Amino acid sequence: MSRVVSGGITAPSGFVTAGVAAGIKRSGALDLAIVASAAPASAAGLFTTNLATAAPVLVSREHLEATGGRARAIVVNSGCANACTGPAGLQVARLMCAETARALECEAEDVLVASTGVIGVQLDPRVVSAGIIDAAQQLDAAHHAAAARAIMTTDPFPKEHAVRAELAGGPVTIGGMAKGSGMIEPNLATMLAFLTTDARVDAAVLRQALVDACDDTFNAITVDGESSTNDTVFLLANGASGVGVEPADYHRFVDALREVCLELALGIVRGGEGATKLVTVRVTGGATDACARRAARAIANSPLVKTAIHGGDPNWGRLVAVAGRSGAQFDLAGARVEVGGVVLFEGGRPYDERAPQAAAHLQRKEVSVLVDLGTGGVHEARIFTCDFSADYVKINAEYRT
Amino acid sequence: MSRVVSGGITAPSGFVTAGVAAGIKRSGALDLAIVASAAPASAAGLFTTNLATAAPVLVSREHLEATGGRARAIVVNSGCANACTGPAGLQVARLMCAETARALECEAEDVLVASTGVIGVQLDPRVVSAGIIDAAQQLDAAHHAAAARAIMTTDPFPKEHAVRAELAGGPVTIGGMAKGSGMIEPNLATMLAFLTTDARVDAAVLRQALVDACDDTFNAITVDGESSTNDTVFLLANGASGVGVEPADYHRFVDALREVCLELALGIVRGGEGATKLVTVRVTGGATDACARRAARAIANSPLVKTAIHGGDPNWGRLVAVAGRSGAQFDLAGARVEVGGVVLFEGGRPYDERAPQAAAHLQRKEVSVLVDLGTGGVHEARIFTCDFSADYVKINAEYRT
Repeated sequence: MSRVVSGGITAPSGFVTAGVAAGIKRSGALDLAIVASAAPASAAGLFTTNLATAAPVLVSREHLEATGGRARAIVVNSGCANACTGPAGLQVARLMCAETARALECEAEDVLVASTGVIGVQLDPRVVSAGIIDAAQQLDAAHHAAAARAIMTTDPFPKEHAVRAELAGGPVTIGGMAKGSGMIEPNLATMLAFLTTDARVDAAVLRQALVDACDDTFNAITVDGESSTNDTVFLLANGASGVGVEPADYHRFVDALREVCLELALGIVRGGEGATKLVTVRVTGGATDACARRAARAIANSPLVKTAIHGGDPNWGRLVAVAGRSGAQFDLAGARVEVGGVVLFEGGRPYDERAPQAAAHLQRKEVSVLVDLGTGGVHEARIFTCDFSADYVKINAEYRT
Repeated sequence: MSRVVSGGITAPSGFVTAGVAAGIKRSGALDLAIVASAAPASAAGLFTTNLATAAPVLVSREHLEATGGRARAIVVNSGCANACTGPAGLQVARLMCAETARALECEAEDVLVASTGVIGVQLDPRVVSAGIIDAAQQLDAAHHAAAARAIMTTDPFPKEHAVRAELAGGPVTIGGMAKGSGMIEPNLATMLAFLTTDARVDAAVLRQALVDACDDTFNAITVDGESSTNDTVFLLANGASGVGVEPADYHRFVDALREVCLELALGIVRGGEGATKLVTVRVTGGATDACARRAARAIANSPLVKTAIHGGDPNWGRLVAVAGRSGAQFDLAGARVEVGGVVLFEGGRPYDERAPQAAAHLQRKEVSVLVDLGTGGVHEARIFTCDFSADYVKINAEYRT
C-alpha cells in the first residue's frame, strides 16, 4: 500500500522544477516549465501514435534512443504545439533541449522536450530561449504548482499527484503532473504527463513499468476520441532515495505508479473540455478482450451517449445501439444495460419503471454505465470519459479565432 | 440526363401514399405513413449493420426473402423505433404488415415495415392498427408531402425528390422521401429512405441498382458517426410506365436513381441535428481506397473538425491531426490541406497568410475541405457531413426526457 503525499512532481527527492511566463501565450499566463533531476536519471517515454508527429516528439524519441533511456531534465511549453512546423520547428525543439542543457550543464540529448497548444504555428526561438534561461534560474522543489500550471492549455485546473510506497529496501516516492482537456483518446500517450521517482530503476525496467501503469490509466481515458500530434508521457527515476526496485518489488512499484497515473488520468477526464461529469464505462460479456475494449471505447466516444448523460437521461437504448454498431460481437437477447447499478434492460426487455432511480444516479458528478454484450464471454473493459456539453462546442468553435 | 419533377415518392405512376397522425407521437404530429403500389412491385432493401437490429428490420428482411424481392406496400411509423422490444415488438411489426395487407387486399409478406423514434418503447398495437386503417383510406398520389412529414422525428424539414429519365423504351420516373437527423453514419442504410419507380425492373437488377446508387450517396454521409438499430432503404419498381430497364439502360437508370438518393442524402446532412452547414470532405492521395475512405470518415466524424467549421475557423492543423490518427497511411511532408480550394498547408509548411480567404469560405452554408494524405497514392474519397453546434448537444441531451 502506498500513501498520498504532497509536492506533486517534486515530491520525490532530487527533483526541482519551475514554471514561468515566457510570453508564448498572448495572455501572459505561465507557459514554460522545466523539470530537472540533480543526478542523471533513468528515463522512459511513451508517445502519440498519430502519424502527423510533432517536432518535440521526434526529438525526444531521438534523445531516448541515443542515451538508451537516460535524462537530466524535461522542458515543456504550452501555447504552441510546434506541430506541422517542418524543419524550422525541429530546429526550435532541438534548441529548447540545447538551451536547457546549457543552463543545467549537461548534454542536449539528456533533455526531453514536449509542447502543447495550437498546431502549425512556429515557436519564436528567442522567446523560448529567454523563457528557459528564466526558468532555469528559478528551479526549486517548491515550484511544482507553478510548473503544473505552466503546462496547461484549456485545462480548467492543474493536475498533480504523488504517493509514497514501501519497497523492500525502504520508502520511495512517485510524483507527477499532467495536462489534458481536448484531444484525449485511449490510444497510448494521449496528453502530456510527466512522472518522477526517487527509486533506483534501470531504464528497461522503468519502461516496462510505465507501459504497465499506463494500460488501465492514461490508455483507458477518452474525452473526444482524438489523439493529438504531441501526446507524451515521460517518467524519470533518479535513484535519490537510495532504494532500488528489486524484482520482488516490481508489482508494488507499478501499483504505486499506477495510482499516480490513475489520479492524473481521471483529472484529465474531469477537466475535459466542457465536462461536467466523470463517467466510468464498463463492458462485460466480451467474446474477446478486443471486443470488450472496442465496445467500451465506442460507448465512451459516442456523442449520443455523452449528450444523454449530460442531460441526465438514462437512455439505455443508445447504449445498446452503440454496442450493437461498435463492431464487437453482440447478442441482443443476452445483453444487459445498467446505469449506476440499476438494470434497465435485460433478457430482451426494458425495465423503464426503474428509470427514475437511474436518472437520480445521473445527477451525480461521478456516474457509471455498464453494458454486457450478451455473448457469454468473460472479457471486460473499463474506460473513463466525460459527458458532452454545449460548452465543448463553444470552447472548440472559438479556441483559435 | 434526367430532369427533376415534382411529386416526391408518388411522382412515378401507380403509387399512392398517405401520412396520418395515429397518436404515436404525444405531440399529435403526423406519425404513420403508407406507400402503396397499384400492382405488385419488384422490391429491394438495404438495412442497418447494427447488431441490435430492430423488429421492423427483422420482419422486412424476412418478407423480402420470402417473396424473392416483391412488395405491394411499405408501412412506416415515427415516434417509436420498435427496437429492443423483444418478442412483443416483433409481434407488433408483424401486425403492422398484416393490417396494411388486409386494407390493401394483399399478403402480409408483400408489405415492408420500418420504424423510427425512441428505442425500447413498445408500440401500442391498437394505436398503430387504427392509424393504418385511417391511412389506408386516405391513400392518394397527392399526399406525398404528408407522408414525407409523417416519417420525421427531429428532422427540421421533410426530404422529397423525384426525377424523370429517358430510357431506350421511353421515360421512367424515380421518386423518394427520407428522414434523418441524428444517428447517421456512412455504413449502409443509415436512416430511413423510401424510393419508388414506375420502371419495370426485375428484383435482382433492382437490388444491384440500389446498392450501386447508395454507395456514393446514403453510404457517403455522416452526421455523428452513429448507425441506428432501424436504418433502412427500400426501393419499389412497379413497371407502371410500361418501360423496362434493359441492360443498355442500366447505367442511365442507376444515374437517375443516384440523383434522387444524393438529393435525399444531402437533405439528411443539411438537416442534421443542430447543423448549420453542409460540409464536403474530400480525401486524395490515398494509398488504397480503404485509406482514403477511412481518413475521410475520421475527418467527417471528428468533433474537433466539426466544431472548428462551425466556428468558421480554417483550422487546418486539426484536419492534419485527424488524418494522422485515422489509421490511414499518411506522410506529413507530402500532405496538403485545402479549405474552399485555398491551400493552407503544403510541403510541410503552413500558409497562414491565406487564412482570411479560407475563413470567408467557411461563412457559406455549403463548404468544402480537402486533405491529401501525401502518400502519392491515387485513391480518393468523398464524404458529406455537417458542422457541430451547441444545438446538437441541446437536442440530444433533451430528446427523451
